[in-house]
Amino acid sequence: MLYGSSVIQPNGHLEIGGVDTVHLANQFGTPLYVYDVAHMRQQARAFKRAFTENNVAGQVAYASKAFSCVAMVQLVEEEGLNLDVVSGGELYTALSAGFPPERIHFHGNNKSTDEIDMAVKAGIGCFIADNFQELLLLEKASQYHGQKISVLLRTTPGVKASTHEYIATGQEDSKFGFDLESGQVHEALKYVLSHEAFDCLGLHCHIGSQIFDANAFEVAVDKIYRELELRRDDLGFVPKVLNLGGGFGIRYVEGDSAQPPEKYVGTMIEAVKRQSSRLGFAVPEIWIEPGRAIVGNAGTTLYKVGSQKEVPNVRRYLAVDGGMSDNLRPALYDAKYEGILANRGWDRCDRTMSVAGKCCETGDMLIWDLSLPEVHTDDLLAVFSTGAYGYSMSNNYNRIPRPAVVFVENGDARLVVRRETYEDLVQLDLPLKESVIP
Amino acid sequence: MLYGSSVIQPNGHLEIGGVDTVHLANQFGTPLYVYDVAHMRQQARAFKRAFTENNVAGQVAYASKAFSCVAMVQLVEEEGLNLDVVSGGELYTALSAGFPPERIHFHGNNKSTDEIDMAVKAGIGCFIADNFQELLLLEKASQYHGQKISVLLRTTPGVKASTHEYIATGQEDSKFGFDLESGQVHEALKYVLSHEAFDCLGLHCHIGSQIFDANAFEVAVDKIYRELELRRDDLGFVPKVLNLGGGFGIRYVEGDSAQPPEKYVGTMIEAVKRQSSRLGFAVPEIWIEPGRAIVGNAGTTLYKVGSQKEVPNVRRYLAVDGGMSDNLRPALYDAKYEGILANRGWDRCDRTMSVAGKCCETGDMLIWDLSLPEVHTDDLLAVFSTGAYGYSMSNNYNRIPRPAVVFVENGDARLVVRRETYEDLVQLDLPLKESVIP
Repeated sequence: MLYGSSVIQPNGHLEIGGVDTVHLANQFGTPLYVYDVAHMRQQARAFKRAFTENNVAGQVAYASKAFSCVAMVQLVEEEGLNLDVVSGGELYTALSAGFPPERIHFHGNNKSTDEIDMAVKAGIGCFIADNFQELLLLEKASQYHGQKISVLLRTTPGVKASTHEYIATGQEDSKFGFDLESGQVHEALKYVLSHEAFDCLGLHCHIGSQIFDANAFEVAVDKIYRELELRRDDLGFVPKVLNLGGGFGIRYVEGDSAQPPEKYVGTMIEAVKRQSSRLGFAVPEIWIEPGRAIVGNAGTTLYKVGSQKEVPNVRRYLAVDGGMSDNLRPALYDAKYEGILANRGWDRCDRTMSVAGKCCETGDMLIWDLSLPEVHTDDLLAVFSTGAYGYSMSNNYNRIPRPAVVFVENGDARLVVRRETYEDLVQLDLPLKESVIP
Repeated sequence: MLYGSSVIQPNGHLEIGGVDTVHLANQFGTPLYVYDVAHMRQQARAFKRAFTENNVAGQVAYASKAFSCVAMVQLVEEEGLNLDVVSGGELYTALSAGFPPERIHFHGNNKSTDEIDMAVKAGIGCFIADNFQELLLLEKASQYHGQKISVLLRTTPGVKASTHEYIATGQEDSKFGFDLESGQVHEALKYVLSHEAFDCLGLHCHIGSQIFDANAFEVAVDKIYRELELRRDDLGFVPKVLNLGGGFGIRYVEGDSAQPPEKYVGTMIEAVKRQSSRLGFAVPEIWIEPGRAIVGNAGTTLYKVGSQKEVPNVRRYLAVDGGMSDNLRPALYDAKYEGILANRGWDRCDRTMSVAGKCCETGDMLIWDLSLPEVHTDDLLAVFSTGAYGYSMSNNYNRIPRPAVVFVENGDARLVVRRETYEDLVQLDLPLKESVIP
């Protein structure tokens, strides 16, 4: 159940990236997010390699929303990936980190005029255009800035995939994208092909999150090619790029049958090659957008154990010094996690406890029924696979400061996001009365 | 469906606290939280009055976690309420606002040594002690600071109440408090009564959130008095204070049968009087902890309308410039809200639309199937009753900056929390490489 470079040292301490997590907790405090940099590099390289090994032109864009900070963006750049952003804030972070703008793609169902302006000015690579309103805004921006705008059209192909299953529906009830079946994709394509403002690179689709069943991507490819066949015939359109999105599932807990990157990508490539050959198309560039699959398993959260409560004959609660303020996924999605004592990793797990957060809310539970050794106050609990949508959804509920983030690699630890302070918490506050904050 | 001082002006603009919300949106931008100060004062006073009118000594403590910022704390102080805090961050906010520490109560299932130390040093009024581990920490703090510590013991009486129903259970499967039925309350009482460190004021219980059925409080009172009867007999303990918590339900949407403050408190007082008289106790001070009931209906969020998407024969989506980053409750609890066009409040609502947020997540929906007039880009949507657990749970998911908060009253608008900037978003970030943020 250990990921990447994680090992249990002979003294029972969990080590990640060659660094003792007990030392990390002492040095940086808890809760603490620890990212295994080698593991992130390995995942990034595996996705890229899946294209080169199949002799297909591909692009791997890291989806910032899974975890964005300046250092993460810089790591993505080092690994030669592209970058997806979904807001002005993610774009600002990318630009602050010095990420090459031409390798940035801009996503989102409701981009504002300001965000579009900021992105065009910065010279980003392309927009994943989501809807007709956005096409109007992009056209205005093109006129204002006097330059063509590269777009992919986000389509909703009527394939909903999640974990073990996919559903092929006629129409997808989604806030995102141009509906395929009802002719919205056709209409949008006609629009961008007939307006000077646009350089239409191709189509995009994203069929879900945490997908284990690679065949779902194949179904989506088949649906898109049915559309492409029609659009070749009536619009003479052949895409340079097919962006098949992300959603590659990872293992959180026992039983999660996640596939390696090459399996997901291999299935996609095979489907695209087969369909392209059927229609006599050149195989387009295939773009993908992994987020969780790059950072999810690489992240571990360290908590200090505090109070305990026994409800006789019902349950034993173990409270830690974080909770839904740093990991919203259990409360939001009923997400499951695994964990161990980071300071006594070899001790036999002969107890069952439920890990509670410190937020004043009954729903603030991190893990139900976790196997652990007897646990004492100040023991260190490591929760695994918190790298995606952990820090990115963290908040100040109960006015709890957000944790620090460290990157570990080859025995080095580097603080990449500093811990919030109490002073930070009131930084945006203005007084009601004249008496100002001391 | 309008609350407090809200009215629709003849020109169709929503007015709150005597201020035109269209002007507010222009001046402060969107999304924007607008709080109706008069409505908050009115709720605060209604809770206080419920005690004076019943000739019972009572204390009303505002539960910070519903919405905490410096100005809110100062308003609470102006209205003469006490204050509940659940973390060092909420305590810091209260102290920064100049709130009298002796009127602060400290809650939480996992208070840290640092938090306890900070609170004792500040001279807060009392701790709501949650568990045995905390009693040990409080005892140490008492010794260190050389002073007695006032405590209420949080009990879990085995009454779970939510909205229209309550369940009386033998044991409550909760991370909070001392279990009543299994003897934990007895044990904890013995402990605090026999240790010099403590001044035990009485017992506390909190039976749920968004409770409409006032009888649930009566059931809890009855259960606690069964315990008090036993503890009078064996420990000679008679409480000075009975804290019955919060959870007073408010109206979010049509059909929510919320009661006025006097109804909830009246039922409590009646039950306490009856039980006290049965046992020959002096009626204790009754403390309550409203949070949502003070701020919930007073808050309105203003959003600007952006893109729209029609899924033929299925649904019309309307996207606004905020979402789960500023209001997590729909995604987290499937919470329902009502809303209107703040710039065209008189227009006939003959359309049905679903309000989507701008986060890159299918689950980011604010309201399903809302009746609205035909809506255009840049219309202003007001979502009602967002005052509780809106800003307090807001986050930077998708790196979206958190909105500003304004207080309006008697025609004046005062910015009390400034809008986050992109610069704020990267403030905690440190570079991976030497090239620093520009």
